[in-house]
Amino acid sequence: MRNKMSSAQNSIPLRIGIAGLGTVGTGTLALLEQHAPLLASRAGRSLVVNGVSARQRQRVRGVAIERYRWFDDPLAMANDPEIDVVVELIGGSEGVAKALVEKALSLGKPVVTANKALLALSGTALAELAERHETSLRCEAAVAGGIPIIKGLREGLAANRITAVYGILNGTSNFILSQMRQTRQSFAHVLEEAQRAGYAEADPSFDIDGIDAAHKLTLLASVAFGVPVDFHTVHVEGIRHIAPLDIDFAEELGYRIKLLAIARHGPHGIERRVHPSMIPHSATLANVEGVFNAVYVEGDFCDRMTFIGRGAGGGPTASAVVADLVDLARGYYCPLFGEPVAVLTSSSPVAGIERRFGEYYLRLMVSDRPGVIADIGAAMRDHDVSIEKLSQHGRGAGPYNAVPVVLTTHAQGEPAMRQALKAISALPAVLEPPCLIRIEAL
Amino acid sequence: MRNKMSSAQNSIPLRIGIAGLGTVGTGTLALLEQHAPLLASRAGRSLVVNGVSARQRQRVRGVAIERYRWFDDPLAMANDPEIDVVVELIGGSEGVAKALVEKALSLGKPVVTANKALLALSGTALAELAERHETSLRCEAAVAGGIPIIKGLREGLAANRITAVYGILNGTSNFILSQMRQTRQSFAHVLEEAQRAGYAEADPSFDIDGIDAAHKLTLLASVAFGVPVDFHTVHVEGIRHIAPLDIDFAEELGYRIKLLAIARHGPHGIERRVHPSMIPHSATLANVEGVFNAVYVEGDFCDRMTFIGRGAGGGPTASAVVADLVDLARGYYCPLFGEPVAVLTSSSPVAGIERRFGEYYLRLMVSDRPGVIADIGAAMRDHDVSIEKLSQHGRGAGPYNAVPVVLTTHAQGEPAMRQALKAISALPAVLEPPCLIRIEAL
Repeated sequence: MRNKMSSAQNSIPLRIGIAGLGTVGTGTLALLEQHAPLLASRAGRSLVVNGVSARQRQRVRGVAIERYRWFDDPLAMANDPEIDVVVELIGGSEGVAKALVEKALSLGKPVVTANKALLALSGTALAELAERHETSLRCEAAVAGGIPIIKGLREGLAANRITAVYGILNGTSNFILSQMRQTRQSFAHVLEEAQRAGYAEADPSFDIDGIDAAHKLTLLASVAFGVPVDFHTVHVEGIRHIAPLDIDFAEELGYRIKLLAIARHGPHGIERRVHPSMIPHSATLANVEGVFNAVYVEGDFCDRMTFIGRGAGGGPTASAVVADLVDLARGYYCPLFGEPVAVLTSSSPVAGIERRFGEYYLRLMVSDRPGVIADIGAAMRDHDVSIEKLSQHGRGAGPYNAVPVVLTTHAQGEPAMRQALKAISALPAVLEPPCLIRIEAL
Repeated sequence: MRNKMSSAQNSIPLRIGIAGLGTVGTGTLALLEQHAPLLASRAGRSLVVNGVSARQRQRVRGVAIERYRWFDDPLAMANDPEIDVVVELIGGSEGVAKALVEKALSLGKPVVTANKALLALSGTALAELAERHETSLRCEAAVAGGIPIIKGLREGLAANRITAVYGILNGTSNFILSQMRQTRQSFAHVLEEAQRAGYAEADPSFDIDGIDAAHKLTLLASVAFGVPVDFHTVHVEGIRHIAPLDIDFAEELGYRIKLLAIARHGPHGIERRVHPSMIPHSATLANVEGVFNAVYVEGDFCDRMTFIGRGAGGGPTASAVVADLVDLARGYYCPLFGEPVAVLTSSSPVAGIERRFGEYYLRLMVSDRPGVIADIGAAMRDHDVSIEKLSQHGRGAGPYNAVPVVLTTHAQGEPAMRQALKAISALPAVLEPPCLIRIEAL
């Protein structure tokens, strides 16, 4: 064992090539420069940027890149004998990013990436490629920004059988829901505001439709449960349909609405789902507001654990990228998902959303006239859905005489709820598509 | 680099000797047995218990120890050629525990320990001993039970200059304060209850007087800031003097009282202090209740981060012990405090409690008679302490006609506050020793 301690302490610098110089790339450059002596002391050797690459050399901002060797072609950078490790910050599940990661790994060079889309779709194959070439693929920055949750699960909680992971993994969605609650403005209005403030992209669908969170959840589930990535079985719903009304009713009922990414290892297999959820006020995750991310984990020995921090931004994400580089410099090698691909449990069945058993919140806009509540009650009864609370709020107004009806159910299966919802949606008195939100106990 | 990946994947078992078979020791045995295949898969090799030792063989409970080789003398176990790594769970800052750790390290064998007292007092020397013998000393279980906070700081946040760490590090104290708030019972009553429930020791002073938290803070500060351990400069106050009254007033003022362990790297040097603190209701740490622990960290790139989990108990602590063993089995070697002892910044000055600058809460029991408020105000003014709020509660009652007066101050230096406090304590109308609690902004 002794040789390993010595080799981690050797003084050969780790020569880094960075591809992609957006917010995270320039943040990583700034960090590596600003903390060079500290990092050398911690890693036992220098971390030196020995090459950079980006789409347009002239457009790189906020950091002086002249001092670094420039590569027009990131693959040429990977191929350069004076590059030991490649940092892929280009993004995208295909194209250059994928080609670059494959190239570097094939050459036996470790790769650090923040690319959740790539790994959610091709993570198993890339992990296998890394193993075949006896090198390392690392992705701390791909999930929850600065929070060391990949390390937390893969190493810190390595002694546990993880049974559940609940995450607030998309800062944009969490910011929007927090703002809607605080300002009581509509989703559309708050989204526009978030776009102006730079918290949401011009095309926000990746964030607000749950896809980004589903990518991250896919990785967390694989690390937590030791299973191959399986993005296509994640059930995904976004937050576009949440109204200020729902946020108010949630508060009244003692809940807060969060876009939760949930992975559970249950009796029917592995559940993976992303959808708006009502969680009790008192839950730690309920109080994670704004652009913060959080991950709640249940393990058989560690019990419940929560990690909270900034889920995006140049600084926090660079913190995660460089943590991976320090680990590589220290000589830590670990399979991407904590276990070699060959032993990942690919036989675990998928428990689809139809396996969910739990409580539901339903908000309807109905005509304010006699008999509506009876019709709703009958539809629920016909599908064996047991109502816990039901209330009509205010008196009808507007051209349709519309009034909200809110109900919560006792715990039950998803299929029955869906059947009941279908029947209710078809009632003539129901004026808009109902808003269904799952209640998660946490 | 390739050889490291292969060597971590070799199939030679890691042979473990465990000394100390109390709650954590038996928990560790149970975990290693229950998860043997999972751990072998994650670590790339088997983790095998090849020896156990405890004070009294007959008294080991809850786990069948016959199958393990027994050592009456833990030092003989460390010396045994068929033991690769020693797990020290004996406890205590001197005596057998210390001798065992020294022995194992001197033989070049890695040590995993949960012993915060030992490391808070002798951590630097032991880390140096480990380095000299090219081996590893690990202590994830020594701080915050199952929360991987040592790993989080030393590896997960290795890219950051850490500026502050705030911890709820003693579950017993946090349980007592939470119970006092919920039941409005006295400290003494709740302590007795906690002792009956097994949450507090028969001699509780280690926990409730802040010493245990100070041990843990000492380790966190060394890992966070890269400095030698310095337990003797930690300012320590416990929670014995907190009355239900203070908890009520805190709530009224928008605060919650927590026994906080605080380490800050500020302009005057490193602050290390453990004392009851009022923190805003909205702070994440304010909502960490009962036996849970939490650590809040500020770093220059990662920004704010919080880790929450179970701080004690056989399961969570075993989770941390075995995480260290998995790391060793994987071939991860890292200096105890993240940097070799030789480069720890021993020149950092200590910023004692007298350097604190902040707000204060003060609760007095005074005679309900005219002029008392004027006298208190004058004492504060004479020492340049600016009062933010002051209120007298109710009318006097009891033999002394006693009534509580509560005040909060604007931010200011500790020395002035202490002088003012001394003057106020000397006022004839002040009937009991005042209760001073620092308000921390967080």
